[in-house]
Amino acid sequence: MTPNVLPKAQRDDLKNRARMLVSCPDQPGIVAAVSRFLHEQGANIVQSDQYTMDPEGGMFFIRIEFDLDNLDDRREKLKEDFAAVAEQFQMQWSITRASRKKRLAVFVSKEDHALLELLWQWQAGDLEADIAMVISNHDDMRSLVESFDIPYHHIPVTPTTKAEAERRQLELVVGKVDAVVLARYMQIITPKFIEHFPNRIINIHHSFLPAFVGGKPYAQAYNRGVKIIGATAHYVTEELDGGPIIEQDVQRVSHRHNVDDLKRIGRHIERIVLARAVSWHVEDRVIIHGNKTVVFN
Amino acid sequence: MTPNVLPKAQRDDLKNRARMLVSCPDQPGIVAAVSRFLHEQGANIVQSDQYTMDPEGGMFFIRIEFDLDNLDDRREKLKEDFAAVAEQFQMQWSITRASRKKRLAVFVSKEDHALLELLWQWQAGDLEADIAMVISNHDDMRSLVESFDIPYHHIPVTPTTKAEAERRQLELVVGKVDAVVLARYMQIITPKFIEHFPNRIINIHHSFLPAFVGGKPYAQAYNRGVKIIGATAHYVTEELDGGPIIEQDVQRVSHRHNVDDLKRIGRHIERIVLARAVSWHVEDRVIIHGNKTVVFN
Amino acid sequence: MTPNVLPKAQRDDLKNRARMLVSCPDQPGIVAAVSRFLHEQGANIVQSDQYTMDPEGGMFFIRIEFDLDNLDDRREKLKEDFAAVAEQFQMQWSITRASRKKRLAVFVSKEDHALLELLWQWQAGDLEADIAMVISNHDDMRSLVESFDIPYHHIPVTPTTKAEAERRQLELVVGKVDAVVLARYMQIITPKFIEHFPNRIINIHHSFLPAFVGGKPYAQAYNRGVKIIGATAHYVTEELDGGPIIEQDVQRVSHRHNVDDLKRIGRHIERIVLARAVSWHVEDRVIIHGNKTVVFN
Amino acid sequence: MTPNVLPKAQRDDLKNRARMLVSCPDQPGIVAAVSRFLHEQGANIVQSDQYTMDPEGGMFFIRIEFDLDNLDDRREKLKEDFAAVAEQFQMQWSITRASRKKRLAVFVSKEDHALLELLWQWQAGDLEADIAMVISNHDDMRSLVESFDIPYHHIPVTPTTKAEAERRQLELVVGKVDAVVLARYMQIITPKFIEHFPNRIINIHHSFLPAFVGGKPYAQAYNRGVKIIGATAHYVTEELDGGPIIEQDVQRVSHRHNVDDLKRIGRHIERIVLARAVSWHVEDRVIIHGNKTVVFN
Repeated sequence: MTPNVLPKAQRDDLKNRARMLVSCPDQPGIVAAVSRFLHEQGANIVQSDQYTMDPEGGMFFIRIEFDLDNLDDRREKLKEDFAAVAEQFQMQWSITRASRKKRLAVFVSKEDHALLELLWQWQAGDLEADIAMVISNHDDMRSLVESFDIPYHHIPVTPTTKAEAERRQLELVVGKVDAVVLARYMQIITPKFIEHFPNRIINIHHSFLPAFVGGKPYAQAYNRGVKIIGATAHYVTEELDGGPIIEQDVQRVSHRHNVDDLKRIGRHIERIVLARAVSWHVEDRVIIHGNKTVVFN
Repeated sequence: MTPNVLPKAQRDDLKNRARMLVSCPDQPGIVAAVSRFLHEQGANIVQSDQYTMDPEGGMFFIRIEFDLDNLDDRREKLKEDFAAVAEQFQMQWSITRASRKKRLAVFVSKEDHALLELLWQWQAGDLEADIAMVISNHDDMRSLVESFDIPYHHIPVTPTTKAEAERRQLELVVGKVDAVVLARYMQIITPKFIEHFPNRIINIHHSFLPAFVGGKPYAQAYNRGVKIIGATAHYVTEELDGGPIIEQDVQRVSHRHNVDDLKRIGRHIERIVLARAVSWHVEDRVIIHGNKTVVFN
Repeated sequence: MTPNVLPKAQRDDLKNRARMLVSCPDQPGIVAAVSRFLHEQGANIVQSDQYTMDPEGGMFFIRIEFDLDNLDDRREKLKEDFAAVAEQFQMQWSITRASRKKRLAVFVSKEDHALLELLWQWQAGDLEADIAMVISNHDDMRSLVESFDIPYHHIPVTPTTKAEAERRQLELVVGKVDAVVLARYMQIITPKFIEHFPNRIINIHHSFLPAFVGGKPYAQAYNRGVKIIGATAHYVTEELDGGPIIEQDVQRVSHRHNVDDLKRIGRHIERIVLARAVSWHVEDRVIIHGNKTVVFN
Repeated sequence: MTPNVLPKAQRDDLKNRARMLVSCPDQPGIVAAVSRFLHEQGANIVQSDQYTMDPEGGMFFIRIEFDLDNLDDRREKLKEDFAAVAEQFQMQWSITRASRKKRLAVFVSKEDHALLELLWQWQAGDLEADIAMVISNHDDMRSLVESFDIPYHHIPVTPTTKAEAERRQLELVVGKVDAVVLARYMQIITPKFIEHFPNRIINIHHSFLPAFVGGKPYAQAYNRGVKIIGATAHYVTEELDGGPIIEQDVQRVSHRHNVDDLKRIGRHIERIVLARAVSWHVEDRVIIHGNKTVVFN
């Protein structure tokens, strides 16, 4: 069972491609105002997706991809002009350029499968992002990562060096990357770290949340005798395994599988689910509302 | 593996709900023109889905659900007014009311599973249609169908009575129903019949088309040793099993399954796939372009 | 995502078909002893499935389907003779006849989808069981059930009549049916009732257990923002929603679905999952070990 | 939708693990004879799977995993002794050691995804095989492959060098590998080559066979407007894309996907399907019967 896999625009089509994300209280005329604005700018709407939480008095969300000649030169002015429309409807909004790939820092510990999938999709041109660096509390994956010409930072974490490790991590990432991906990074992320990347840290949890919150989810799954296991990609918040869910997927198992089997099968689910979530994030397909996500895919 | 199952609007929300389907050559300004038009009418866009086949010089498709006060009284005027916008962009278009359920004639032969699923979904309120009649070349399902208070017409078909049978069928359905559903109806539909319901006859074929076109698809699948079987709902055209595909689904099988097993498993796929396709058709979610469909779901 | 759907033996093949289920501590020679025994009786093994929890010192499970001439006359003697083999290996075991369909009592409340699926599959010959009666705390489904020539017992349950209601239920089912199926029966089953049908009461829970234990699971799922919902069929034990899981399945949902949508989509999963679990139970495909199941399918 | 993923035995368990595959005309007593034989040898049956094509007069297939002390020293004698049992039942059979990994030659052209998946699964210990060499008609993947310490042979193929290229390929593989895997190798395999590896060449075809046989299957799928695409792993026979199917899988697509999208989505299906098929082959889980496979998984 898989979601629709998204079509990819050709790379060279993207020079003048912009993406607008909007959320605001619903009221008549939003689509008309936005599309009139874009039309008057000379933009061509290539794709639009919209969702109204509740026709009467709920929330309105829209994602629009549009092409605009000379986007690079015009984008600052475009944003200034749109601010007036946005204010009228109390919008939270963003306009980004598709050609400006998001920069990612990937954190890993000892398991390489989630990182490998990201690297492979990146190399194949399927992940629209720059992997700016990999940070790990172990040195195991250095040669793998460096073979992709990606900087690798080994920052050990021990009970006594935690604070210092975090300081070094922040020094590397703050202002340098747009989002942080925890690709099976087995250390706690502190509220202080999260503060620097609100709704921009993506974690892969190895269970079908909210089942099996916390440690050793595959052992928990084995003991409960479930017939399906899963993995969950979510934004990291202060509540452990409690942040907004971006994507989940599952696979059938049976009594024949022991805990090691579940881990092995789970690795496959984890890498697929994380890659999807990261892909949607960097393509500006996710809007967070409360503790939930609206994913336009 | 299943597609997204669609959210249903509450029935009492639908009194003023309209659905607009548009296809036209792509050019800048279409969304702006349509949404400005709707805004000026006082309509509130509840949902819109849009697809551009190719940004440069391709086709543009949009489906909009909107609410408009006093829709019943205003819909003729609305259409008149929209005609001007439509002409400017060479649109093919329709505006329908959600509260005006489409009327269906369901054709069956001896297998009841596909019909039963439609009846059950209809009874549960999940199928937004009126099943106006069931027509069969056998009398077997009369009591079942009549227990749902649906008229049942037994029209036997033999080599010598074919023409007469078709005449009686057409007499029952032409002008009386909006679409015809072939729920495992095992007789040929003639070009003459199709002419009365262009792109409005939905058939369920018991294979994953285009594999196993023609008769006895499960026997063909068994002989080829496939590991997955499927079913296909498509619009009926003059080419046998060749019309636009609306929906397909599949299920895993193994060497253990003989032809009877494949038929039994296939019945489950068939009923699900047909029910989805009919549901999308009656909710105006399908646009036909060439020999393919655009399905907004 | 679905499990293999099982092949069905032809009905007329089943007169001399027996099914043996065995679980015992693993040791060398079990398969040899059992198959030698069957061969000496003149039986032909048609299908066998076996699972060893851990080669060294674990548990051994086997399910064998075999044909034996004059099974009806010989089965008592067969069991007597097998007891010696069983004792040697400390087996828990059963031998049943495929032609002797299990009798079921189905309990329902107000939602009919799970019951309907069982009735249809039974009518289509896909469920190898006799539905001996339907018991409900409401009278709503009487005419539906009676149209299948199945007795319907309306036993209202109120806080003051609980004990009396249970007494009447037990009177109807004890000694009359082999298993009880809770097809969305919304009343608590007491330990006293469970005692009469240990590991023979099958419930369908409308969540992907252990996520969303307890009441209103679809509302819980909506609030957590999960991207996949599910249903779980399990044997009823004294721990609420905690008994051995027989089968689970899931379906993808999105932000677009409200609680009512989740319920509607969930109904489809529930009916499929329950039907599978009941089918496996009545075909003697389930062995319970601790709080988990071994399902030979 | 995925098949059960198989549990893996721990590597160090495998020293004395053997796998027996048998196919023969069905008759009573086969299981008894085989299991008595194994018991008398002192073997412990760890797993057995069996399938009878038709109880009366059909074919019987069985796969048994068993442990036998000092397997290495005793296996020749074991085979000699079993020959007597085999002859009695006209068996086709094999006994292999799990610890003796099969050697594979992987053929690729320019697309690396299928090869990469095999390399990763091999590196992660999930593929029980030795990748003895990679042979390609291009030199593109040399550094990738050599980074895994696997020999890479670049053998260009042009219309005039075909025969010579095949001669060099055969020189490299005949007697050196157990099976050949075509991981998107875009050259024709000749009957002469096939003769050296009957039922031991595995190809991944990028469609849901038998739909879209031959070239450009994704373009064919796009033009037909299918809603699901797939890939097929099969043994190579003289009939193009017509050999016994080992495994298939599929993924949902929509009108939004152009041919390039289908190729990208398809790459993911291809790598998963091929990896499964190769895995089953090297674990002796596949028996070929006629033009179909029995897969014990």
